[in-house]
Amino acid sequence: MKLDEKFKVLDAGNAPGQEVRQDIGDLNTVMRGEKFDGVPVDFSHGDVDAFPPTPGSDVAWNDGFSKGASQAYTEYRGAAEIRIELADRLSIFTGSVIDANSELIITPGTQGALFLAIGATVTNGTKVAVVEPDYFANRKLVKFFGGEVVPIPLNYEGSSSENGPDLNRIEAAFKNETEVFVFSTPNNPTGVVYSASTITKISELAATHNVTVIVDELYSRMLYSGENYTHLRSCSTQPKNIITIMGPSKTESLSGFRLGVGFGTSKLIERMERLQAIVSLRAPGYNQAALNTWFQEPLGWMENRIQKHEAIRDELLTIFRSANLHTASPQAGSYLFPQLPPLNVDLSTFVRLLRLQANVIVTPGSEFDPACNDRIRLNFSQDHVSAIAAVKRIVKMIEIYSI
Amino acid sequence: MKLDEKFKVLDAGNAPGQEVRQDIGDLNTVMRGEKFDGVPVDFSHGDVDAFPPTPGSDVAWNDGFSKGASQAYTEYRGAAEIRIELADRLSIFTGSVIDANSELIITPGTQGALFLAIGATVTNGTKVAVVEPDYFANRKLVKFFGGEVVPIPLNYEGSSSENGPDLNRIEAAFKNETEVFVFSTPNNPTGVVYSASTITKISELAATHNVTVIVDELYSRMLYSGENYTHLRSCSTQPKNIITIMGPSKTESLSGFRLGVGFGTSKLIERMERLQAIVSLRAPGYNQAALNTWFQEPLGWMENRIQKHEAIRDELLTIFRSANLHTASPQAGSYLFPQLPPLNVDLSTFVRLLRLQANVIVTPGSEFDPACNDRIRLNFSQDHVSAIAAVKRIVKMIEIYSI
Repeated sequence: MKLDEKFKVLDAGNAPGQEVRQDIGDLNTVMRGEKFDGVPVDFSHGDVDAFPPTPGSDVAWNDGFSKGASQAYTEYRGAAEIRIELADRLSIFTGSVIDANSELIITPGTQGALFLAIGATVTNGTKVAVVEPDYFANRKLVKFFGGEVVPIPLNYEGSSSENGPDLNRIEAAFKNETEVFVFSTPNNPTGVVYSASTITKISELAATHNVTVIVDELYSRMLYSGENYTHLRSCSTQPKNIITIMGPSKTESLSGFRLGVGFGTSKLIERMERLQAIVSLRAPGYNQAALNTWFQEPLGWMENRIQKHEAIRDELLTIFRSANLHTASPQAGSYLFPQLPPLNVDLSTFVRLLRLQANVIVTPGSEFDPACNDRIRLNFSQDHVSAIAAVKRIVKMIEIYSI
Repeated sequence: MKLDEKFKVLDAGNAPGQEVRQDIGDLNTVMRGEKFDGVPVDFSHGDVDAFPPTPGSDVAWNDGFSKGASQAYTEYRGAAEIRIELADRLSIFTGSVIDANSELIITPGTQGALFLAIGATVTNGTKVAVVEPDYFANRKLVKFFGGEVVPIPLNYEGSSSENGPDLNRIEAAFKNETEVFVFSTPNNPTGVVYSASTITKISELAATHNVTVIVDELYSRMLYSGENYTHLRSCSTQPKNIITIMGPSKTESLSGFRLGVGFGTSKLIERMERLQAIVSLRAPGYNQAALNTWFQEPLGWMENRIQKHEAIRDELLTIFRSANLHTASPQAGSYLFPQLPPLNVDLSTFVRLLRLQANVIVTPGSEFDPACNDRIRLNFSQDHVSAIAAVKRIVKMIEIYSI
């Protein structure tokens, strides 16, 4: 693949957080009516001012800085004493023992873990099953490393028992030379949590057909009332190669620290470390110390954070549904993925109009699934009052631009 | 290339900082004599306790943390206001104007900048001229992206007017389909600074043959008495595509922050940002704030730091030379690259013996040039007294294991 093509695949112009680089262009000629008043809300990512970082995370950073050389220069896979404690806590959380020495790597964000995991398993011609919709980087990464995307449809508009990936398509893919399966659960952007039976089935199929599984569990702690979560790595039948990735960037609001982890099959962790050695050497040394706050937040802090997100979720769902806009209810995480009615403008223009006219930033659904060009994604980890007002503006904008 | 081969190229077992993962094995059977007393010295990287981070860098981080959301989520290429100020200072330092909006990206360390620059310019079959010896990741990165290494010998044992890369070989490579040239000046591991005439010639040859140049100037601020430095980007004849990379990890001891920059041709910076979007999104947001201390250190601080390194350099050179060990004098940076006499053990064993018996960690020369299996690299950015004592132990070890 020529470099120009290779980088065309990686177009980041509509990626969350990059809106500031977009040319607003001559939108004034298509804009209908006046600009709206209202506090700007950037739904492309969570607002860490509304939901601040874990208490003590900055103190932990300063402790790390004070430790000096030993914290600045860690092993590429991360400081041993931090990995040891973290492996313990993640073993308990995921229901299966992790060896701190050989089965865990600290990475620059969960994005970093995903990059390393895909880089360690995908090369020219590797067939990779990718769920649609799913986190936008999955597809881009597979293509960047020369792999071939095998799409797996996700059902996300039914009840939670009906939702999930198409298991028949997964089995067909696995039987047809697919070597790697990458997916997120809770799913980004829909908030679907794969059920225990789905996870068990995936694990069994991967074991049978020797498929490497990369499971992105970034949102697995933000689980709403009545929901259950199953970690693939705790299933009784295990695939030979499995990497789980997580990080404290979302629920814990530590995105500004760029910390994540990958854990699982030691051979793959070894490869991920070799790749990390040429990518960025290590996650920032001092920052790694903030992982000491992870999975040991103050008592009640996590429950409170989840409760507040659930309240926002419920109110936003009510607003969308009152306007007859179909929006599945996320079981976990902080994303809504509402469907838009037919509009007079294309999705890209509508998203830019939202920014120009309504002071609202959202991410086009097509970032997550090429077919989802009638959806937008909102990260509702925002100030409650501002989020409500902003979603009301979105609803008005949809009314204005509806056919 | 199969994944196993691809990752064999990336073997990081002897990489600086990874020594702790090495198996010391049955070295006791080849060890001669007793273990030495003495403070352990890790010459594989600088000691940021001996030369601490730039004053105020931790305060800058805390300021960044206090800024909250706007500092946590920056554009992928880094916070605009930090880029604007940095572009000004780097323009002055390098003698050529940098546009902050389109020509500069903030990366996770200089390693990150190198990874992105090579990833943006090298794909399957790209011929890349690589100097030998040079920074060990250059070769690994080219191979990882599927490129073909075209070796360029470096003269580093003569006078500073004789030293430098073989320009005839560079010209021959450029005439023979080489598309990219990557090199460091000051050179890592030898400390050779490419002369003004060499840099001018490289720039002209690259312009004539349309070769993309990636110049690693990581050590360009640590310039010893009487030395001059020429930035390729300030030459009057410019190649169409050029990226300069730098960072505050070495002279400024900010390695624990993982910060670097790449600047140059906007089309390549755009590609680097797209790649960063799938690698780690951005350099850690709060950490980026520490770049506000870069190139505006307290008055006299840099001069003092250079002077102290020069004093260590001179004393270590005297010790090596008194023992008849050939060691070129670095013009810049903090590396020594002494040649060893024939030994009774191979280089890898000797390096592990140094660690076990003499409490000294060094990096084998073969990491920098496959042919340099009779050299070791020392980063002498260490406590002065401990470094002297440790180098005396190295000299004794060489005596013990000499044939």
